[in-house]
Amino acid sequence: MVNGPNLNLLGTREPQVYGHETLSDLNARLDEVATELNVSIEHFQSNHEGAIVDKIQSVMGKASCILINAGAYTHTSVAIRDALLGTAIPFFEIHISNVHAREEFRHHSYLSDKAIGVIVGFGLDGYEFALRKAARLVNK
Amino acid sequence: MVNGPNLNLLGTREPQVYGHETLSDLNARLDEVATELNVSIEHFQSNHEGAIVDKIQSVMGKASCILINAGAYTHTSVAIRDALLGTAIPFFEIHISNVHAREEFRHHSYLSDKAIGVIVGFGLDGYEFALRKAARLVNK
Amino acid sequence: MVNGPNLNLLGTREPQVYGHETLSDLNARLDEVATELNVSIEHFQSNHEGAIVDKIQSVMGKASCILINAGAYTHTSVAIRDALLGTAIPFFEIHISNVHAREEFRHHSYLSDKAIGVIVGFGLDGYEFALRKAARLVNK
Amino acid sequence: MVNGPNLNLLGTREPQVYGHETLSDLNARLDEVATELNVSIEHFQSNHEGAIVDKIQSVMGKASCILINAGAYTHTSVAIRDALLGTAIPFFEIHISNVHAREEFRHHSYLSDKAIGVIVGFGLDGYEFALRKAARLVNK
Amino acid sequence: MVNGPNLNLLGTREPQVYGHETLSDLNARLDEVATELNVSIEHFQSNHEGAIVDKIQSVMGKASCILINAGAYTHTSVAIRDALLGTAIPFFEIHISNVHAREEFRHHSYLSDKAIGVIVGFGLDGYEFALRKAARLVNK
Amino acid sequence: MVNGPNLNLLGTREPQVYGHETLSDLNARLDEVATELNVSIEHFQSNHEGAIVDKIQSVMGKASCILINAGAYTHTSVAIRDALLGTAIPFFEIHISNVHAREEFRHHSYLSDKAIGVIVGFGLDGYEFALRKAARLVNK
Amino acid sequence: MVNGPNLNLLGTREPQVYGHETLSDLNARLDEVATELNVSIEHFQSNHEGAIVDKIQSVMGKASCILINAGAYTHTSVAIRDALLGTAIPFFEIHISNVHAREEFRHHSYLSDKAIGVIVGFGLDGYEFALRKAARLVNK
Amino acid sequence: MVNGPNLNLLGTREPQVYGHETLSDLNARLDEVATELNVSIEHFQSNHEGAIVDKIQSVMGKASCILINAGAYTHTSVAIRDALLGTAIPFFEIHISNVHAREEFRHHSYLSDKAIGVIVGFGLDGYEFALRKAARLVNK
Amino acid sequence: MVNGPNLNLLGTREPQVYGHETLSDLNARLDEVATELNVSIEHFQSNHEGAIVDKIQSVMGKASCILINAGAYTHTSVAIRDALLGTAIPFFEIHISNVHAREEFRHHSYLSDKAIGVIVGFGLDGYEFALRKAARLVNK
Amino acid sequence: MVNGPNLNLLGTREPQVYGHETLSDLNARLDEVATELNVSIEHFQSNHEGAIVDKIQSVMGKASCILINAGAYTHTSVAIRDALLGTAIPFFEIHISNVHAREEFRHHSYLSDKAIGVIVGFGLDGYEFALRKAARLVNK
Amino acid sequence: MVNGPNLNLLGTREPQVYGHETLSDLNARLDEVATELNVSIEHFQSNHEGAIVDKIQSVMGKASCILINAGAYTHTSVAIRDALLGTAIPFFEIHISNVHAREEFRHHSYLSDKAIGVIVGFGLDGYEFALRKAARLVNK
Amino acid sequence: MVNGPNLNLLGTREPQVYGHETLSDLNARLDEVATELNVSIEHFQSNHEGAIVDKIQSVMGKASCILINAGAYTHTSVAIRDALLGTAIPFFEIHISNVHAREEFRHHSYLSDKAIGVIVGFGLDGYEFALRKAARLVNK
Repeated sequence: MVNGPNLNLLGTREPQVYGHETLSDLNARLDEVATELNVSIEHFQSNHEGAIVDKIQSVMGKASCILINAGAYTHTSVAIRDALLGTAIPFFEIHISNVHAREEFRHHSYLSDKAIGVIVGFGLDGYEFALRKAARLVNK
Repeated sequence: MVNGPNLNLLGTREPQVYGHETLSDLNARLDEVATELNVSIEHFQSNHEGAIVDKIQSVMGKASCILINAGAYTHTSVAIRDALLGTAIPFFEIHISNVHAREEFRHHSYLSDKAIGVIVGFGLDGYEFALRKAARLVNK
Repeated sequence: MVNGPNLNLLGTREPQVYGHETLSDLNARLDEVATELNVSIEHFQSNHEGAIVDKIQSVMGKASCILINAGAYTHTSVAIRDALLGTAIPFFEIHISNVHAREEFRHHSYLSDKAIGVIVGFGLDGYEFALRKAARLVNK
Repeated sequence: MVNGPNLNLLGTREPQVYGHETLSDLNARLDEVATELNVSIEHFQSNHEGAIVDKIQSVMGKASCILINAGAYTHTSVAIRDALLGTAIPFFEIHISNVHAREEFRHHSYLSDKAIGVIVGFGLDGYEFALRKAARLVNK
Repeated sequence: MVNGPNLNLLGTREPQVYGHETLSDLNARLDEVATELNVSIEHFQSNHEGAIVDKIQSVMGKASCILINAGAYTHTSVAIRDALLGTAIPFFEIHISNVHAREEFRHHSYLSDKAIGVIVGFGLDGYEFALRKAARLVNK
Repeated sequence: MVNGPNLNLLGTREPQVYGHETLSDLNARLDEVATELNVSIEHFQSNHEGAIVDKIQSVMGKASCILINAGAYTHTSVAIRDALLGTAIPFFEIHISNVHAREEFRHHSYLSDKAIGVIVGFGLDGYEFALRKAARLVNK
Repeated sequence: MVNGPNLNLLGTREPQVYGHETLSDLNARLDEVATELNVSIEHFQSNHEGAIVDKIQSVMGKASCILINAGAYTHTSVAIRDALLGTAIPFFEIHISNVHAREEFRHHSYLSDKAIGVIVGFGLDGYEFALRKAARLVNK
Repeated sequence: MVNGPNLNLLGTREPQVYGHETLSDLNARLDEVATELNVSIEHFQSNHEGAIVDKIQSVMGKASCILINAGAYTHTSVAIRDALLGTAIPFFEIHISNVHAREEFRHHSYLSDKAIGVIVGFGLDGYEFALRKAARLVNK
Repeated sequence: MVNGPNLNLLGTREPQVYGHETLSDLNARLDEVATELNVSIEHFQSNHEGAIVDKIQSVMGKASCILINAGAYTHTSVAIRDALLGTAIPFFEIHISNVHAREEFRHHSYLSDKAIGVIVGFGLDGYEFALRKAARLVNK
Repeated sequence: MVNGPNLNLLGTREPQVYGHETLSDLNARLDEVATELNVSIEHFQSNHEGAIVDKIQSVMGKASCILINAGAYTHTSVAIRDALLGTAIPFFEIHISNVHAREEFRHHSYLSDKAIGVIVGFGLDGYEFALRKAARLVNK
Repeated sequence: MVNGPNLNLLGTREPQVYGHETLSDLNARLDEVATELNVSIEHFQSNHEGAIVDKIQSVMGKASCILINAGAYTHTSVAIRDALLGTAIPFFEIHISNVHAREEFRHHSYLSDKAIGVIVGFGLDGYEFALRKAARLVNK
Repeated sequence: MVNGPNLNLLGTREPQVYGHETLSDLNARLDEVATELNVSIEHFQSNHEGAIVDKIQSVMGKASCILINAGAYTHTSVAIRDALLGTAIPFFEIHISNVHAREEFRHHSYLSDKAIGVIVGFGLDGYEFALRKAARLVNK
């Protein structure tokens, strides 16, 4: 799982938009689900576009699926798109809030047309559902 | 649950895009999940925009949540948007395929900015996850 | 008089936008004005685009004027425009709320450039004034 | 009531578009209606954008409603918009002809989204109806 | 053969644009040509988008080709496009008048890029030629 | 009949798009149809925009109808449009392939809004049908 | 002749663009040409849009032609356009410099499509030629 | 210093946007700062575009710098731009509120690309800072 | 003088737009004016873009000014623009009719921003005035 | 205070645009002003978008105001916008040069609509004035 | 090798953009390189779009690669694009100057998306490098 | 030489687009060419936008030319553009694949209009040719 810029603020930043759970709450919850589903999951968060690119490259040949909430980089980063395409790892795109109900520039994503699926506005449950879907695909 | 035009063809129409399960397979599966979650669910499908508007109006005061895959009407129907707003029932928007990877005109939805959440490209699992999320909200 | 989708919800739907009078209140009021003006008026409402087209066709050669609030179909229906042009019945376009103060897509109408006149934001009084204007034109 | 540029030509300018009644015919007629409705009305016309701004400012705290046909300034004047907003007097926007059936640049108005209501294509009757509506609001 | 909204008015609606032949004249004429070509043809007209979708679905596996003049729905209906794609029946798009010489919004069609061929401005002869072409393809 | 640039390659150029018949096959076939219809037809092909303009001018007062497939010049030549308008000869526009299913820039034509009719995607049969239609108009 | 805003600065303002002759030099020169052509000419310059509208209205029924360089108002004034249309006086549009070689917003004029002719970049000679052309038309 | 339309309402107009200080409060404060900086300053406000143009022309050769808040004319007046360019007086552009956070049409200015500097959203302090900057440049 | 495509039709093509004088009438008239002005002039007309480019190149170092009415190529030819820039001969752009009052695509010219001056809608007098202006510049 | 990419080159990079003072000159000057105003200020510069995001997060709860010149990231970084919004620290946006007079893409900022104020083209004085304004707000 | 319009002016036309070498200098240099690479090369230049199309067609089945600098036709000619596609000869696109640093309309090419490679701004060296690359591909 | 994000994957990432040579193969090859040309070359690759900016700044005054393939940052990074402009080192832009034949967003580059030359679609040979060109310029 890859989380982009400012997602480390989860639980403190604009709680009316993002809720009160923190990033480590989320990670703990996903670990639990992963255990239930019998898959392993690794967590990563960075505010640096380049660091996210580095990370994606580093799991090439290891991860069978990436769950990514690229945050603000969703709307501006061709480099992350290229990393995902270059490593050819299937991925799901997640947004906690409903980006379609926010500023115009958040309606476009450089990732969506290459994702398997996209889930927005489901809060932190979006991560859980994406993880469940990924597990179903991997175990198919 | 409201399904829009051509979703009655599920399982026969472009199976490489929409899979092999039929609409009644889907309904059966959702009934099962509903039972598990202890909620009740009603199924509706129509190729008529007006019939979908009628249906949404008719559940005002009865349904606590609508799961809608408006199909092609997603991209053209202000009337369905208005029905959802007018009845003020919270709703989730679902698309079986990843609409962002298809024609340009499928990238815009008249529903997304008013939905609680949107899930695309998860196949029929998208309905299941939306149902689970709706149940969590209702039972909160 | 032709009312489009969701106008049957009048009085219940978003009362802060559309007021508390219901569609039958409106009809009653217009009947009264029609009596005062010595003209006859017929009421019609439907959520179905096709039914509105059918209705317009059916009054060809009978109605001397149409008062239409096509609701959401104002912004999406070329078919209703074509029915009005095809039957060549003069018509007035009415909107209860001020559509110019709402979402961008409500600023465009497929009817306005072919209407005799357009009245928006006058609440239910807009119907009354359009009826009075129509009567003046017919009796001229 | 505020009339904008070239409306002093009423009755002479393009009569096929604007009719044969002159501006003083219109004023007389509105005075009559005002008497009937027991409200008082003041008339103003100018070809100068700045003079219209001055006038609007000068009735702040005196007028309870403005009826404005800003003519050509409708499409170009942010200053008149600001005067109306700055004085916070509710207003109705009137156009004699159906501006939606004319040149593209006449389809946009700097006033409409801030008006209570807009009436176009009703000829001089539009002023009368706006006056009647204004009186109903004021007397409410 | 599928005819869309307002085509039932053929012969009465705007005869300077659409000619004086009625829809049943057209049907009779096409029956004759079909007999000559030794193919069978079924006629359908509706003002309802949903009814056209229903009809297209209902001939899946029966019709080898659809001749469609979707009228106003040409420019607004993704649902009809989806029905044609979903049933995978090859189709020809017909317009009686030259749509390119009319309003801007009639220049775009949701069907053209998926049609085998498009014929516009040939009057009712367009149906005949499309039928002849369809027969050649079917009999190839 | 006027054929534009690269149509001399017919039968060799991209046969999956344009078929295997050559330009002289087409000419022969049209001569046959012309004989059947008792009209005379002249063939012309050039890769030069100016030569096509010259040709159109040279048949002023002689041809009663032009069948034109301007090929690539369809999308870029105002000069050919002007020649057709300047000589005031009615014309039909033909494209062998379905231009609406190809590159964006092939969707616009400088000729369509001035043509009597347009036929695309009917292969070489498009020429035949346009010829038949032209003969019907001329003989009317 | 009507000159718009800042043309009183002629000879002092940006001489590399507008030359060294002043507005009264120009007027004198045009008086001379008018005498030669046996026509009478009146000069007017104002920085006020409203004053230009007033002036145009005041010559209705007196002037047979207007030569107008509306300066900056060319690009922003619908009111001047309306005054010219409302008084129905034929007019020529003049610009001293080549507006097409300057800022993007100077490429659009609210007057050009209603002018008889437009002359730009001819320096002060543009006024002279427009005057000569106007005299030819008047004397025809 | 030049203030444009509706700035005479300062202190009364939308105080939540523009604050409670009046235009004469502002003038007094700037006079004080000017005294401190040993420069002289002249105040001017008008609701008339033409009057602002006249004023700018009248200080040519006298003022070494103009501080201008053109209010609504910022977004619509090429004439004021031309007056500033024509007189070649360096100028600073000031807006009390943050125009970037308001309506889309307030994001474009006809003055900014020719100003030395622009200051927005600093309230009345913006005038003071622009005056201080101007004084530094003049005294350099 | 260079005349573009279809200008050889002058006097026959759309006389309500272009008048009744032919191209040789025009040439004769310009020869006369040239004699009066003591300059020499050469006439050229072609329907071929390439031939116009060839011609412009061929007068490099000989002509001191080009008068060009590129007709339809005005709107589509970068090659003619480049020939004019490449040979660096100053030129005037002429259009007989008022192109601003015609189709949208005639409002853009590839030549105007590089011309000394542009004259449109002056009929054939436009050539004469351009010739007179050119002579004044050359003789300066 | 946060300075974005390439601002470390201050004094060496394009001095005709950015002046000759270096970044440490600027810092020294601001320290002086801060002392005068009795506020404390911290300096930060980075070429890394992620590092700027990290920095902004790190002063949450410590800084009462941020002065930011995000340099090139102004036009491309949603991540920095989100960091500013997420930490909810009020901020001023500063640009040394007048960005409105430079390339089109520098006219849009992802920060301006959320800033308290924006100051451009004031050179290094812009920082000083923003600091003074910030101090007034903090001390209010 | 195909050179488009105005490239025959090489060495005389705008030498600050295109350098001082002439077209025959270039041809000589390329012949030399061809000899070195043991490939044969044919030179062609024309100002006529149609002649370039003719030429491309004429080398079908003979040339294994085309080096093309279509000059101005790069931006306007679909016919040349079609000739290159129709003959299916691989090609390289060359521009002497950096077209991206010139007028907006030179940024779009009808050839680039179908070329193997594009080289711009390398001066005449661009031809040499394209020839070397072509030889490597041919000899592969 | 500067290589941007994901170019470290060269040889593994999408080999059908980028070929099978790795980044160190490329570096070795360029070292060889550099030796032949008697110039020195330094290699740098990073996935971090900020690191590329740092690198460019660090060679100011040392490198006489930069060869840059900014990868995905080509389309999104104003910071790299500014670093190149700020250091004023001449540079060549290189893309291995033909970006014009890929997604729309890859057609725009923030670097091209400031580069000396651009070479795309030449595979790894593009680097070699750019190096040869750079050497010619440096040694001139």
